[in-house]
Amino acid sequence: MLILVTYDVQTSTTGGAKRLRHVAKKCGEYGIRVQNSVFECVVDATQYKQLQLALEKIIDPEKDSLRFYNLGNKYNSKVIHIGAKETLDVEAPLIF
Amino acid sequence: MLILVTYDVQTSTTGGAKRLRHVAKKCGEYGIRVQNSVFECVVDATQYKQLQLALEKIIDPEKDSLRFYNLGNKYNSKVIHIGAKETLDVEAPLIF
Repeated sequence: MLILVTYDVQTSTTGGAKRLRHVAKKCGEYGIRVQNSVFECVVDATQYKQLQLALEKIIDPEKDSLRFYNLGNKYNSKVIHIGAKETLDVEAPLIF
Repeated sequence: MLILVTYDVQTSTTGGAKRLRHVAKKCGEYGIRVQNSVFECVVDATQYKQLQLALEKIIDPEKDSLRFYNLGNKYNSKVIHIGAKETLDVEAPLIF
């Protein structure tokens, strides 16, 4: 299933920049970055739970915001991109 | 249906800050801001198309990125929020 992860990390506070880097790094382990603080992760239910728990440990819940959106398994028709930085279709066959 | 709008606008270029304001303003006419560059819009198909066209006119497609995610009509169970700035459930009855 496709999980969209969006986040706002308050970098004006101490440790904020570090939390931001760690959130992006952790999301990168599960999916691809499509915008500055937006990742698309194709994961199963177990991986989704792992990602949630891992990110919860990184953020400061008083200052930072994490949002997860579950677009299910049939998601191609649900996503529209306009403008710069088109992303690679994570599941399309790589043709060389 | 719930449409998630995420965007990256390049503010380092001329007119970028203005485009950013206008994108946010336009999204605000259709939904609520849940993170810095993330809006949740409960719209019908016509409004969705209007929003897309309006935002396409505002951005610079060479520099800015717009993404739309369609979460359909039964979306409550598809969205998880962790951390700061919980948003109002846009369709929940306001109880005074």
